[in-house]
Amino acid sequence: MSTAVPPARRVVAEAVGTAALVAVVVGSGIQATELSRDVGVQLLANSLSTVFGLGVLIVLLGPVSGAHFNPVVSLAAWWTGRRDGDGLSLRQLAAYVPAQIAGAITGAVLADAMFARPLVAWSTHERFAPHLWISEVVATGTLILLIFGLARTGHARLAPAAVACWIGAAYWFTSSTSFANPAVTIGRAFTDTFAGIAPTSVPAFITAQLLGAAAGLGLVVLLFDPLLPSPAREVVDAAVPAASFAEQGSSRP
Amino acid sequence: MSTAVPPARRVVAEAVGTAALVAVVVGSGIQATELSRDVGVQLLANSLSTVFGLGVLIVLLGPVSGAHFNPVVSLAAWWTGRRDGDGLSLRQLAAYVPAQIAGAITGAVLADAMFARPLVAWSTHERFAPHLWISEVVATGTLILLIFGLARTGHARLAPAAVACWIGAAYWFTSSTSFANPAVTIGRAFTDTFAGIAPTSVPAFITAQLLGAAAGLGLVVLLFDPLLPSPAREVVDAAVPAASFAEQGSSRP
Amino acid sequence: MSTAVPPARRVVAEAVGTAALVAVVVGSGIQATELSRDVGVQLLANSLSTVFGLGVLIVLLGPVSGAHFNPVVSLAAWWTGRRDGDGLSLRQLAAYVPAQIAGAITGAVLADAMFARPLVAWSTHERFAPHLWISEVVATGTLILLIFGLARTGHARLAPAAVACWIGAAYWFTSSTSFANPAVTIGRAFTDTFAGIAPTSVPAFITAQLLGAAAGLGLVVLLFDPLLPSPAREVVDAAVPAASFAEQGSSRP
Amino acid sequence: MSTAVPPARRVVAEAVGTAALVAVVVGSGIQATELSRDVGVQLLANSLSTVFGLGVLIVLLGPVSGAHFNPVVSLAAWWTGRRDGDGLSLRQLAAYVPAQIAGAITGAVLADAMFARPLVAWSTHERFAPHLWISEVVATGTLILLIFGLARTGHARLAPAAVACWIGAAYWFTSSTSFANPAVTIGRAFTDTFAGIAPTSVPAFITAQLLGAAAGLGLVVLLFDPLLPSPAREVVDAAVPAASFAEQGSSRP
Repeated sequence: MSTAVPPARRVVAEAVGTAALVAVVVGSGIQATELSRDVGVQLLANSLSTVFGLGVLIVLLGPVSGAHFNPVVSLAAWWTGRRDGDGLSLRQLAAYVPAQIAGAITGAVLADAMFARPLVAWSTHERFAPHLWISEVVATGTLILLIFGLARTGHARLAPAAVACWIGAAYWFTSSTSFANPAVTIGRAFTDTFAGIAPTSVPAFITAQLLGAAAGLGLVVLLFDPLLPSPAREVVDAAVPAASFAEQGSSRP
Repeated sequence: MSTAVPPARRVVAEAVGTAALVAVVVGSGIQATELSRDVGVQLLANSLSTVFGLGVLIVLLGPVSGAHFNPVVSLAAWWTGRRDGDGLSLRQLAAYVPAQIAGAITGAVLADAMFARPLVAWSTHERFAPHLWISEVVATGTLILLIFGLARTGHARLAPAAVACWIGAAYWFTSSTSFANPAVTIGRAFTDTFAGIAPTSVPAFITAQLLGAAAGLGLVVLLFDPLLPSPAREVVDAAVPAASFAEQGSSRP
Repeated sequence: MSTAVPPARRVVAEAVGTAALVAVVVGSGIQATELSRDVGVQLLANSLSTVFGLGVLIVLLGPVSGAHFNPVVSLAAWWTGRRDGDGLSLRQLAAYVPAQIAGAITGAVLADAMFARPLVAWSTHERFAPHLWISEVVATGTLILLIFGLARTGHARLAPAAVACWIGAAYWFTSSTSFANPAVTIGRAFTDTFAGIAPTSVPAFITAQLLGAAAGLGLVVLLFDPLLPSPAREVVDAAVPAASFAEQGSSRP
Repeated sequence: MSTAVPPARRVVAEAVGTAALVAVVVGSGIQATELSRDVGVQLLANSLSTVFGLGVLIVLLGPVSGAHFNPVVSLAAWWTGRRDGDGLSLRQLAAYVPAQIAGAITGAVLADAMFARPLVAWSTHERFAPHLWISEVVATGTLILLIFGLARTGHARLAPAAVACWIGAAYWFTSSTSFANPAVTIGRAFTDTFAGIAPTSVPAFITAQLLGAAAGLGLVVLLFDPLLPSPAREVVDAAVPAASFAEQGSSRP
């Protein structure tokens, strides 16, 4: 993101973007269950809407806040850039995460409002099983690998389309339908609809997501980092994620 | 749009583009209801056709008229550029809006003709409820935020794909299926098919859309405008929407 | 297309490309009817496969032959460039059209072979009604408007995605599912499957397509041509379709 | 791929990429069969997930290994570049292929784990018939034509989207659903789910894929190679596939 963007606006962008993302996920899930009895058709609608909506939100808000919308992405951006200070600062991280969580809850409430549902109702959708946790590890790990791998290879501007498409695929190839985002997971606990998750299932999901993020950063090192000659490495490091996120939606030079 | 494009041709482009858009929306809705009994499948077909068709129409006609196809977009383009005169002029606005409405009605009639339906039949599809109006506020507000946000960040050339994808998502995540366009709303009153809207439901939809547009412009200010340093701001203002729409489909420089 | 491409290879490319296009259309139609009983799902699969396949074929073969795959496109390319000689020559036109028709028939046979169907069986699918002909006029007219409009505005490189998406939309918003191509229409008469058309229905379809092409060229003049100042016009004419098709898949300069 | 990428990392990238690809294919197939009874909807989900996932994997890993994920692609890259040494070396080929196969098996096991299925179960899905083999010849031949044709015309950077879309179309227009990849074929023998293939059906599939690859290289020569003037040819040869794959995901220059 440009250094010209004031910190407060970045935080607002994270809140607005995460709210819109959860509204897309939850709202399209409600519409889908209202219109079709085939759960396959429901998930097709839900996943395609998410692909379309998520890609747009990253393009739109990337130049403002980096368009993380996801605590583990912000955490990884801080972690990878902590030594040279060109990632997210600890203070920014501490502002981003609550904004993302508040945004996610707001998005779930907004979706419920748009479909005349109770504004807040704890989800009764249990998602508690080892194979779901494995799925969340895989989904979050590959998401982190994707975001930081694109940054490492100078392709951060492809992130909006790539991240959206990957999440779209992961809706289907993981049994958990790929939450891969602690803020979104919390937000989805606040709606008793298709995309909801019972509050009791939340902690294990978030734990799996954190494990997945760590594994993903390991894969980044394995595939993109350690064997580059030093000078090249420095150049690459100069384009760390938090900065390069800003270019996600940016024009070709 | 290029200053080389004569005013009359711009107006024709708005009429043709809005007609084609409504023909896509209404026609694909008719085909979908003829072929499937699953309403989820129907809306999948309807929304995907709209994504494909709308994106193409913006690419094609953006260089001619700016490809608004929507009175609230034209209104917002006039409003945001009214002080420096590089947006839509009041005279252009007064020509665009009737052309869009006439085009929308023509498009509905054309769709009915292509499916051997009565050319004009008032829709009996009531869409009258508070949660639908909330949906129209959200849909129109985020559409305006998207269009003018992309222009503010220099990404207007991504508007064809981004606007089409956002509408595709909003078909699903709003309970109103996201009309978000007064001209299209009027046009859809003229067909008694899947995508229709009863004439009695039209005024409230348009009111919600106008409210949404105002809210969207507020979000543009909140997220993209006020805190930029003055010189940067002037540069940004020089690329106001009406001008930058012309670049929607344009080549990279 | 580059002048370096030998004429014989261009003709082979038109035959191969049209064969592949018809194999995609017919083959995906057969698979869809074998797997689903919902005709809406069948047409979703058929249309999405066509979008994916057609876009790829234009990208791949555009640099060789211009990737017309369609006699009315070749005819229009010859017509619009006939005065200055930078379009398709009459001799090229006379070679392209038979290659496209032969390719289309081959593609239908190949699709039947891939699904263990009789290699040639006249379609029994009657498509004979005025509203279908109106649909073919609209589908072909807008296709021509799109292709030549993109060329006029310097966006021919967007043609692969735009043409594929437009056809995908037109599968749904026209009652004829948008053949819009005389060669493909003839090819589809050779298979008695989902995408087939009874031979007796072919002549009226082709007539409607020719009328649509003429109407489309009229719209090109109305929206993109006549009011440009002379010098600009000459520049634009220098990039007439047949030449600019070659750029469809080409890199940004 | 950049010469700066160490050989071991390239091999790891091929293994990881192929594993992820098979996890996407197999996992989305399992999810689809769990959620829908309509096989058409199942294949829609399976094919769309593959399009999204495959495109992302090529973008991400192209700069590291060339993102072959497919022994016949590696074989063809070695074959076409064997004379001037700028393709894949025989030693690289000998490292890539086992990595791809090991990755594919791992991906199938991972997908089974994510859905709480037996980690390894031989598929009982027989796919043994001449029309399936014809399909594999067509699918693999056109895939090779596409990859090497894009490289020949300087469009290798479009390969991620083009290859993904073509495979998406080929899921539907071939009766075999287009395996087109010996490593993936072997991996899919290890899971008794929607996307599986009985081990006894594997050898004929791989034979057909090899025949298809040879046919595809013949088409590359016919359409892109032999008639170019010599100097141009040398320039083209300098951009042979293995090298140009590296550009698949690369920025415009």
